[in-house]
Amino acid sequence: MLPSEGRQRVQIEGVSPEIDGGRFPIKRTGGEKVHVEVDMFCDSHDAINGVILYRPETSQQWLEVPLSPLVNDRWEGEFTVSEMGSYVYTIMGWVDHFKSWRRDMAKKIDAAQVVPVDWLIGAELIEKASQRASGHDAEQLKTWVAALRSHYNASNGILEDKAVSPQLAALMAKYPDRQFATTYEKLLKITVDREKARYSTWYELFPRSCGAPGKHGTFADCIARLPYIAELGFDVLYLPPIHPVGVTFRKGKNNTVVAEPGDVGVPWGIGAPEGGHKAIHPQLGTLEDFRNLVSKAAEYGIEVALDLAYQCSPDHPYARENPQWFKRRPDGTIQHAENPPKKYQDIYPIDFETEDWQNLWEELKSVVLFWIDQGVNIFRVDNPHTKSFNFWEWMIGEVKQAYPEVIFLSESFTRPKVMYRLAKLGFTQSYTYFTWRNTKWDLTEYMKELTQTEVREFFRPNFWPNTPDILHAFLQHGGQPAFKLRLVLAATLTANYGIYGPAFEVCENRPLREGSEEYLDSEKYQIREWDLNSPYTIKPLIARVNRIRREHPALQSNNSIRFHQIDNEQIICYTKQTEGGHGSTAPTTDLMLMVVNLDLFSTQSGWLYLPLESLGLKPDQPYQLHDLLNDAQYTWSGEYNYVELNPHVTPAHIFWINQ
Amino acid sequence: MLPSEGRQRVQIEGVSPEIDGGRFPIKRTGGEKVHVEVDMFCDSHDAINGVILYRPETSQQWLEVPLSPLVNDRWEGEFTVSEMGSYVYTIMGWVDHFKSWRRDMAKKIDAAQVVPVDWLIGAELIEKASQRASGHDAEQLKTWVAALRSHYNASNGILEDKAVSPQLAALMAKYPDRQFATTYEKLLKITVDREKARYSTWYELFPRSCGAPGKHGTFADCIARLPYIAELGFDVLYLPPIHPVGVTFRKGKNNTVVAEPGDVGVPWGIGAPEGGHKAIHPQLGTLEDFRNLVSKAAEYGIEVALDLAYQCSPDHPYARENPQWFKRRPDGTIQHAENPPKKYQDIYPIDFETEDWQNLWEELKSVVLFWIDQGVNIFRVDNPHTKSFNFWEWMIGEVKQAYPEVIFLSESFTRPKVMYRLAKLGFTQSYTYFTWRNTKWDLTEYMKELTQTEVREFFRPNFWPNTPDILHAFLQHGGQPAFKLRLVLAATLTANYGIYGPAFEVCENRPLREGSEEYLDSEKYQIREWDLNSPYTIKPLIARVNRIRREHPALQSNNSIRFHQIDNEQIICYTKQTEGGHGSTAPTTDLMLMVVNLDLFSTQSGWLYLPLESLGLKPDQPYQLHDLLNDAQYTWSGEYNYVELNPHVTPAHIFWINQ
Repeated sequence: MLPSEGRQRVQIEGVSPEIDGGRFPIKRTGGEKVHVEVDMFCDSHDAINGVILYRPETSQQWLEVPLSPLVNDRWEGEFTVSEMGSYVYTIMGWVDHFKSWRRDMAKKIDAAQVVPVDWLIGAELIEKASQRASGHDAEQLKTWVAALRSHYNASNGILEDKAVSPQLAALMAKYPDRQFATTYEKLLKITVDREKARYSTWYELFPRSCGAPGKHGTFADCIARLPYIAELGFDVLYLPPIHPVGVTFRKGKNNTVVAEPGDVGVPWGIGAPEGGHKAIHPQLGTLEDFRNLVSKAAEYGIEVALDLAYQCSPDHPYARENPQWFKRRPDGTIQHAENPPKKYQDIYPIDFETEDWQNLWEELKSVVLFWIDQGVNIFRVDNPHTKSFNFWEWMIGEVKQAYPEVIFLSESFTRPKVMYRLAKLGFTQSYTYFTWRNTKWDLTEYMKELTQTEVREFFRPNFWPNTPDILHAFLQHGGQPAFKLRLVLAATLTANYGIYGPAFEVCENRPLREGSEEYLDSEKYQIREWDLNSPYTIKPLIARVNRIRREHPALQSNNSIRFHQIDNEQIICYTKQTEGGHGSTAPTTDLMLMVVNLDLFSTQSGWLYLPLESLGLKPDQPYQLHDLLNDAQYTWSGEYNYVELNPHVTPAHIFWINQ
Repeated sequence: MLPSEGRQRVQIEGVSPEIDGGRFPIKRTGGEKVHVEVDMFCDSHDAINGVILYRPETSQQWLEVPLSPLVNDRWEGEFTVSEMGSYVYTIMGWVDHFKSWRRDMAKKIDAAQVVPVDWLIGAELIEKASQRASGHDAEQLKTWVAALRSHYNASNGILEDKAVSPQLAALMAKYPDRQFATTYEKLLKITVDREKARYSTWYELFPRSCGAPGKHGTFADCIARLPYIAELGFDVLYLPPIHPVGVTFRKGKNNTVVAEPGDVGVPWGIGAPEGGHKAIHPQLGTLEDFRNLVSKAAEYGIEVALDLAYQCSPDHPYARENPQWFKRRPDGTIQHAENPPKKYQDIYPIDFETEDWQNLWEELKSVVLFWIDQGVNIFRVDNPHTKSFNFWEWMIGEVKQAYPEVIFLSESFTRPKVMYRLAKLGFTQSYTYFTWRNTKWDLTEYMKELTQTEVREFFRPNFWPNTPDILHAFLQHGGQPAFKLRLVLAATLTANYGIYGPAFEVCENRPLREGSEEYLDSEKYQIREWDLNSPYTIKPLIARVNRIRREHPALQSNNSIRFHQIDNEQIICYTKQTEGGHGSTAPTTDLMLMVVNLDLFSTQSGWLYLPLESLGLKPDQPYQLHDLLNDAQYTWSGEYNYVELNPHVTPAHIFWINQ
């Protein structure tokens, strides 16, 4: 059977970015560019042209930007997304007969092979374009037509030159003949988030540890802590679950199987007679107290993020009212969580194979909507890889359609393809393997995977040096320098990072036992009192690093990162810059150089090589370096320069480079 | 909006092979395997299972083969296609609760943590499977159910062991619960050709040069030449266009612009008053003579392939009867071919943008059908990249739906993406860059691109050391050793290869002029008389190499090729083997080692390294090498062995290895 139109001669393939054949959207924030590449060609020797078509998904009106040829039939173009929500884009290409004519005329003129009818061919093409044009352009084109037609009879060299003039070409390019244009068969998607999806600075805090000594902390205590958090420079305050904590099979301090009287339990064991995922643990305060925290935090430029942990304690109302949402064992009991030989009798996992899955999904979505109603727009999602992928894709899609500003952070520490799949399915940001990447090679390779492969299009890393679950051996044994080092790396490698405090800033480094990544006296199981004025605190460094991040847009996105050579395996060097570098002709507006000593115990030094020209610096002129950590100033010249870092003084240079 | 089924927990992605997101089919011949890999995983800790589903496109019945886990959530499986035509395949995966139960029970038994209800959980799963089973299997499963239920009350260690027995697991695997299975969203396609698509040996011959001295050759003369071609060992006889040759603007000998009286013209200038693409040049004979050639050739095991050159001389009947299929210039004349400053006034290219494209396409298709009716099943397509891609996809698709045995060879020497696109669109085989790949590095990299990347799934290379258009400088200056060398490379690197004879076997090496790849006194413009008994002929080598190819299945496909180390840049070494090698446990049935000296002038030697174990050889035992070119026998031991080749004696070893 014949196709409806057989004359579309341009072939389009190899479009990038295109995630899994267009199955998943790429991610951007408002104001970010989408750089597209595509293989595009037609049969024969004809010239072609093409554009990227794009629009907000809800718009009827395509916008377009031109494609330019690279090499080997590859073309590129880019556009900027502005509105939050979904965009779509695709490619259109067409045979450009005028472009072919002009190219061939130039060759014929060179070879003195022009025959009169060549002028008529050009005239015909220009005449058709004049019919697509209007106003002055149409008039101008018609003048050209007349000139070429009269030229058919009387050849003259001046017109020959003019016929291939860039002015005529530019005018013709405005009125292309797209009658037989090919449109790429796929409509590719973009999720456009707000800026915080790309650049955010997180502080995790257990509200119950914010109280006066010996007392259960409250939201009011959290409010009192806000100036401190703001001073540190964080803009997201993430709270572990704030819901009523289960009593049945409650774990005791340090994860003992039986709780003692007074043990406060694990906040992730959600649900008690007082309520479930839409309720607040009574000792923290009321819903009004919570809303008050949200609005007070906003005054400090801080957003409150909640933990979304879809699991239940045996005391959760769901277990009574919707037992069909849990797996029932043949003896009638509900199946608790287990990973043999480990048992988690305090947790009922939700059964996503329940026959009543429709009501379950709607209820789980309503939890998110409930907290959105209370002013929460950021959710840190607990172990999303242990819940149905299809549910996430649906739920996040539904929520973001109504509330495109909502951010979901995937707390999944599991196999790489699973973590990436969650990001593809809709999670805005993701936890990473950063915590376990400590050597120069590991850090470099990991950053390349995150920023130089397709992963960068859909996976936004959020680097955490610690979490309540992970106190890495590096921190356990490295003293204060280790905390400083990991803070600087997290904060400058990726634009999204966070710490679990105050454990982090006071350099808490005692593990449950040697070989464990669990904290001793972990806040997961008990209230902790922290000495915020500890002599070990690295609060000043954190505050300064976060200020540097705010003041330097180069640190507010990831993909410009480049690692540089230095003749010392203990020192890692990388630059970040805002658009304009990397061979672009636009000026570099912000260029940052990080030099980090990965050796916690000894001074390290080396000769650092910077490819000045490709960084946008003039190789023959000196350039200024301002170390933003200690305000030292340096003047460097040339590509090789000496650096030296003593870990007991400062773990790193964070240089702003100026020329 | 909720999906219709939300409980499909398995995620499927990263399917390979999958060409351009499933837009294009992969290619196989009957009896070949399709090795599939896929990323497959589900949420949580549950075990999963999966299958490849596949079927002939016209069948309603899915066939299936199991997937096995590799590492990092990757699975693999393979199946064999048998029937010519189209196949489809996809992936199905499901959560396997019995597999999870059995795995967890083994851990619990080890940890002495089995609780009685665990038996009931297993019993329930087995009972459900027994309802899917029938006959003896169902009975056996019910026996297990009873045993586990009774065990619920009275624990005993023997049953514990039995419950995780492989026998029960195997029985359960026969009756999986696929209620919530996920099927991959794409149906991927396979074009299954006959064997000659994969393995063929081509001989190109100008029929008009087959006559007695001074006479225009005929099909009858071609018939007389068949024993010679058969003796050389070719199984495809490809004829340049056999249609009436145009007279207007006919080119003379050596491409002179004006033909002299008696000049026979270019066969690709198709069309004269006697007819066009469905007619036969009168001097060659009649349609009956042609059919006679086809059937006589078949008696020698040779298929006749025709040239499909969709272009016209100004004298072609289309130019009179269907002038709308050509581009008309504003002065009313038809546009001839040109590539400024070159003009080809003897050729009218077809205008695929004609308004009458539907009739054009049907007519062009009818040309192919006409020759199929005359017994032709192989077409060598002239410059397909100068005709509409969409037309090819449609035409080849239509023809192969009715005649899946038809083979189309794409004669496109242009940019790589264009050549690959034509293969994706449906061409069965393709010309390549082989002619210009002469160094070890070039040959190795090119073969890796063709056999170790996705390209191998859709692009079947056909290597030609020469064509009437290409006499490479290597052949011009290398004498007889150059022809021998290129013959051995073409014939052993790829399973499809061809030569343009008798120019090739008699080592014709005179170019039109220094620096040109055109032949002097090219047959494209004149009749040539060839001395088939020339003292320079390499006919014996060709005959032997083609016999070796027939007798050794390892040389009848490409993708097993592996290049091996030798400490001499002038010697290239590679093995090919039939299935079973490369780490497989199946026995290697045919293992061939080629050692080729790329230096045309000097003896070269070196120590060759063979990875014996991965080739399926026992490292601790000697192995026999039989040089099939000269019947010399060698016994080698170990991984390093010495080779030496004198180009004036033999260009290569073609070893059959036996242990």
